[in-house]
Amino acid sequence: MSRPFPLSRLAVLGSGLIGGSVALAARRHALCRELALYSRGPEKQAVMSAGIADLVTDDPAEAVREAAFVVVALPLAAMDSILRTIQVALDPKVVVTDTSSVKLPAMRLLRRNLEGRARWVGSHPMSGGERSGFAFARPDLFEGAVAILTPPEKAEGEALSLVETFWLALGCRIVHLTASEHDRRVAAVSHLPHLLAAALVCSVDNEALEVAGPGFRDVTRIAAASPEMWNEILLANRENILLALRSFLTYLEEAKESLEGGTSSAVKNLLLEASQRRLSFDQRPS
Amino acid sequence: MSRPFPLSRLAVLGSGLIGGSVALAARRHALCRELALYSRGPEKQAVMSAGIADLVTDDPAEAVREAAFVVVALPLAAMDSILRTIQVALDPKVVVTDTSSVKLPAMRLLRRNLEGRARWVGSHPMSGGERSGFAFARPDLFEGAVAILTPPEKAEGEALSLVETFWLALGCRIVHLTASEHDRRVAAVSHLPHLLAAALVCSVDNEALEVAGPGFRDVTRIAAASPEMWNEILLANRENILLALRSFLTYLEEAKESLEGGTSSAVKNLLLEASQRRLSFDQRPS
Repeated sequence: MSRPFPLSRLAVLGSGLIGGSVALAARRHALCRELALYSRGPEKQAVMSAGIADLVTDDPAEAVREAAFVVVALPLAAMDSILRTIQVALDPKVVVTDTSSVKLPAMRLLRRNLEGRARWVGSHPMSGGERSGFAFARPDLFEGAVAILTPPEKAEGEALSLVETFWLALGCRIVHLTASEHDRRVAAVSHLPHLLAAALVCSVDNEALEVAGPGFRDVTRIAAASPEMWNEILLANRENILLALRSFLTYLEEAKESLEGGTSSAVKNLLLEASQRRLSFDQRPS
Repeated sequence: MSRPFPLSRLAVLGSGLIGGSVALAARRHALCRELALYSRGPEKQAVMSAGIADLVTDDPAEAVREAAFVVVALPLAAMDSILRTIQVALDPKVVVTDTSSVKLPAMRLLRRNLEGRARWVGSHPMSGGERSGFAFARPDLFEGAVAILTPPEKAEGEALSLVETFWLALGCRIVHLTASEHDRRVAAVSHLPHLLAAALVCSVDNEALEVAGPGFRDVTRIAAASPEMWNEILLANRENILLALRSFLTYLEEAKESLEGGTSSAVKNLLLEASQRRLSFDQRPS
C-alpha cells in the first residue's frame, strides 16, 4: 500500500467537533474520492447543508459500506452498539480507527467488536477546544496537534501505516504509545487540568469574577467544554486522574504550608521550577 | 480640572511590562506633553533607544520633578525606598497612583510616604501576561482590561477623577473597590490560579509534557511568568489566597471522592456548573 490516498471511500462516524473536522480536513487534503458521514439528530441537517459528504446517513452500517478506512468519532457510551451495528457491513480489508480521549476502554470496544472482522488502531488527536458540535468543526483543527496512536499488540504494519499517514496528512505530529501509557499521560496534561479548571470556576464568587482578567480567562477556558463529554472522560480514566491529582496535591500542599507559615522558600522554588518548565515547554520543537 | 489632558508632565517610575506599557500608551493617546521615565540597570538603554520619553533617568526624584501625575509601576519591595526618595521632589499638587497587584500593602506604603505631601489613589490594571520587562511592553496592553481603583478613605474628587480618566483613556473599564476587597477578589481570580498553574506544571512528568496539547498550554500559560514577581505577590496576599485555596479545595475534594467512589453525580454537577459559569463569563458585557 505505497499510495493509500486518495482512499476510494472514507467513512466518518460522528459529526461533532472531531468527526466534523476530520471530514472537513480529509476533503481539504483530498484524502478520499468518496466521503460517507454517519450523523443523527438535529445536527444531521447542518451536516447535509455543508455539502462536504457524498452520503450523510443516520445508519452507521450504510456509512461504512465499501469504506477503505473508518474513523469512529463518537462518545465511548455510543461506541459499543454502533461498532456492533457496523460489523456485518465492513469490508474485510477495512482499517478502523477511533478518536476517543481514553484509550484502554476504547481499545477494548474495538477488539470486542472487530476481532476477526477488521483491522484497527486507536488514535487520539490532542486537539479540540471548549466548543463542541459540528458548528465549530474546522479543516485545520489538527494542524500542529499531537496525534497519539495506540496500536493493538498484533497491529499489522499496513493498517498502522495507513492510520499514521492519515493523521500526518492532516498536519499532526505522531506519537506511539500503549493504551495504558496514553491514559496515564493524558490524565496529567488534559483530564486533571480540566478538573482543576472546573473546580476553580466553581470556587470563585460572582464579585470576584467581575474583575477577572486574561489570566483567569486562559486558565479556565477549557472548563466551558461539554460537561456530558467530560464527565464520561473523567470517569473512564478516573484511576489515572486520581494518581495525577495526588501528585498535584503534593506540590499544592507544600506551597500551602509555606504560605501559612509566611515563609517563602517552598513557594519560590515552586514558581521557579514551574516557570522554567513552562518556558521550555513553549520552546520545544513542534 | 475639566481638561486634565494633555498633562504638562507625566512621570512613570519603572520600565517593566506595566510601566513601559503605561508610557507607550500615554504617548499614543497624547496624554502628556512631557514624559519622564525612571529606569535603571540593563533595561535603561533599551528604554532610551525606544525614544518615547523626554527624560530617562535612574534618579526617581529627578523623574518626578514638576510632574502633574506620577505612575509608580514598581515591585512592592522597591516602593518604600523610592517613594521616600521622591518625597522632596514632588509638586504639592501632584497626583500619584501605583499599579501593584496587592493593594493593602501598597496603600500603606503610599500613605506612609505621601501623607501631607501629595494626593494618591491606588490602581491595579488587570492586564499583563507571562512575559515581563520593557521588551514586551505594548501601547495597547490596557485596551479592554479592568482597572481597579482603590482610593484612600479621604480621597479628593479631583485626584480620583484624574486617575480614573487616565485609565479610561488607556482603554480600561473602571471598577472601584476598597483595598481589602480588591485583595480578596484578586486572590481568587489571579493569585490562586497562578499558584494552581505552577503546581500543575511541576506535577507533570516530562513524558506526559511531550503529548500536551492546547488545553494544557492555556491552563498553564501564566506559570511561565516571573517567579520573583509572583513570589512577592503570593506572600503579600497570602491570607486571601489561603481563603480562596480552601474554597477551591472543597470543590476539588468533593470531585475527588466522587471519582474514588466511581460515582458520577458530584463530578457531573461540578462540570455542569463550571461550564455554565464559564460560558456566562465569556458572554458578559465588556
